[in-house]
Amino acid sequence: MPKLWSDTIEEHRRTVRDATLDTTAALVARHGLAGVTMSRVAKETGIGRATLYKYFPSVEAIVHAWHERQVGDHLAHLAAIRDRAGDDPGTKLAAVLDAYAVINHHRSPHGRQPHGAEFAQVLHAGARVADAHAQLRTMIADLLRAAAASGDVRDDVSPDELAVFCLHALDAATEAPAQAAVRRLVGITLDALRPR
Amino acid sequence: MPKLWSDTIEEHRRTVRDATLDTTAALVARHGLAGVTMSRVAKETGIGRATLYKYFPSVEAIVHAWHERQVGDHLAHLAAIRDRAGDDPGTKLAAVLDAYAVINHHRSPHGRQPHGAEFAQVLHAGARVADAHAQLRTMIADLLRAAAASGDVRDDVSPDELAVFCLHALDAATEAPAQAAVRRLVGITLDALRPR
Repeated sequence: MPKLWSDTIEEHRRTVRDATLDTTAALVARHGLAGVTMSRVAKETGIGRATLYKYFPSVEAIVHAWHERQVGDHLAHLAAIRDRAGDDPGTKLAAVLDAYAVINHHRSPHGRQPHGAEFAQVLHAGARVADAHAQLRTMIADLLRAAAASGDVRDDVSPDELAVFCLHALDAATEAPAQAAVRRLVGITLDALRPR
Repeated sequence: MPKLWSDTIEEHRRTVRDATLDTTAALVARHGLAGVTMSRVAKETGIGRATLYKYFPSVEAIVHAWHERQVGDHLAHLAAIRDRAGDDPGTKLAAVLDAYAVINHHRSPHGRQPHGAEFAQVLHAGARVADAHAQLRTMIADLLRAAAASGDVRDDVSPDELAVFCLHALDAATEAPAQAAVRRLVGITLDALRPR
């Protein structure tokens, strides 16, 4: 079946959008938010300035969109890991917590992404990010509930409270100097979840 | 012995400074940073505007000074709890971690201090705050080291890594709906530290 013209348009728009996000994230990581202009983004993305303004009103808006895409990708990644980690609730939980810690590690000063604090400052306000955070918490709480039912996780504290604990504890991965420390952190966190 | 004149001056300055910090923190908590001016701070503190400017150049500077005082108070509070918690390293550690979790709970949206995110945004940059954070981490790592030596804490992970884990895990207290949840959080965190 030949592609519809509207699909091609849609695909083109998505390509331009994605390229803009990638370029901007790289520029901001290198030069800081204050060092990046819309003109520069347009030039490096290889599109006209007027075209860029059809997509985004400002560099901050692009950074927001980038972060939303990023968070969406992370959630999808964690869901995929959850779904292919077999049937054992304890194993599923461990796999997802491990993947979450690795994501944190990569967004850390020790990981790939510099200018993290500045990013965080721009991004904090976003309602969609709060929404994604709630989705993440629900995902982890559901895994904990299943693992508590199968006897792999303590049931003396509610899955919701344990989920908040896990997410905060695994934020420590942002300070881990290397993957080995991330693995130890996940181990400590899982130890806290064991049935008493 | 009668008070020296210079001591009286010094005491007066400290009183004015403390009053300014308290007033500003209360105003910012109620109205947000953007809603507070230097004139308003002067008026509510009961000093002249010119006098206020002899102490601080801006509302942001006052908020910074307030936060430094706050962090200093917290460190002193934790050190006092450590020093009066008896001789058992495990008990000392538990007492300090519990106190730290309670501090976090009080600076949370559920605790006393609104406009937390905005505060955090203004404050993030401070080098002295980073310094205080390092002091806190050292204090916790030292307690963990002593507790590991006495067999109260696991020794398969370094005290420094465990300290980072504890501080992040106990940040979850900012989301605890009530003191009971804070206590459970401290319990979970301590469970993670037990010798294997």
